[in-house]
Amino acid sequence: MNYSSKLIENAVEAFASLPGIGRKTALRLVLHLLKQDTQTTLQFAAALTTLREGIRECRSCHNLSDHEICSICADPRRDRALVCVVETIRDLLAIEDTGQYKGQYHVLGGIISPIEGVGPGDLNMESLLQRIETGEIKEVIMAISPTIEGETTSYYLSKKLRESNIQISAIARGVSFGGELEYADELTLARSILARVPYTQQ
Amino acid sequence: MNYSSKLIENAVEAFASLPGIGRKTALRLVLHLLKQDTQTTLQFAAALTTLREGIRECRSCHNLSDHEICSICADPRRDRALVCVVETIRDLLAIEDTGQYKGQYHVLGGIISPIEGVGPGDLNMESLLQRIETGEIKEVIMAISPTIEGETTSYYLSKKLRESNIQISAIARGVSFGGELEYADELTLARSILARVPYTQQ
Repeated sequence: MNYSSKLIENAVEAFASLPGIGRKTALRLVLHLLKQDTQTTLQFAAALTTLREGIRECRSCHNLSDHEICSICADPRRDRALVCVVETIRDLLAIEDTGQYKGQYHVLGGIISPIEGVGPGDLNMESLLQRIETGEIKEVIMAISPTIEGETTSYYLSKKLRESNIQISAIARGVSFGGELEYADELTLARSILARVPYTQQ
Repeated sequence: MNYSSKLIENAVEAFASLPGIGRKTALRLVLHLLKQDTQTTLQFAAALTTLREGIRECRSCHNLSDHEICSICADPRRDRALVCVVETIRDLLAIEDTGQYKGQYHVLGGIISPIEGVGPGDLNMESLLQRIETGEIKEVIMAISPTIEGETTSYYLSKKLRESNIQISAIARGVSFGGELEYADELTLARSILARVPYTQQ
């Protein structure tokens, strides 16, 4: 596309480099910003700059954080004996969104994937073992995707953790709430029968 | 959503304020930027800042431009006797994309819409009449959407232009290339029969 303006072209290129945004959408976003007052665009740019320059990884759990220790690790109301292991920050945010979990987290930063050349050494496992050595942690919950790579990662990590004397659990798997049995996949349905639980009022 | 980071929250808010981007997509974009190197984000922010501070309206045709006169108006190879009137810059870019038009443009900046309180005085019509007064323009092509407001705008403008001694034309309307007759709307089909043209090899 010929934008007849180098400035517009640069801004369109910037937006179009983001995942899921094509050049037409990028142009729409740029023209939208130009319709707003100057301050909006400058604040947008400033939000990105301060984000990139100010953000760091929490020294304890590897969550993204504004400070050396993230607000979850620093929160005294959260149970320091309980650590939920997740692949990514998006998984952490999804669990936080439920509002049901009051323990802490540990972000692995990925999963073991030989195809993509990701080994255990590339993940934040050593720092989890160090956290456990302090003796504060009583239970580790594995909240890792039930894919082949995910199961491999869980298995590897659980073997490492068995050496310490802590409880290891995994998030419950089964048929979704609101899901219809006939549409559940075979593996999930089979496991949900094998791993049945005593009937209680929900 | 609780992002546990004010910096991430600000960046997500900024993206989510754009049309068609929700908070989940905004978070995905922010995390994508954080995975890239710092330079990518800083360049992104800089592209927006320089855009907003550097962009101006072409003094002649009201296209967005890096300079006082846009590159289309300044191009000596383009026919200065031919002016295509469009509603918005996006329409201008769509026509430019065809690569078939070698005249100049005039961007109205909207269409007459009493409901939204947009009158002829709010559009760039006066400056078009001034351009015509210079005597350089021989033909004005109306490329305005065939909606009620669009037709009103075309009608109003054509009445104004009739006072000057120039040719006024409108873009051809009819069944789209590749469109099937049975799916064309009635109005388009009826007009395409009434406004039939001599058969020529396309």
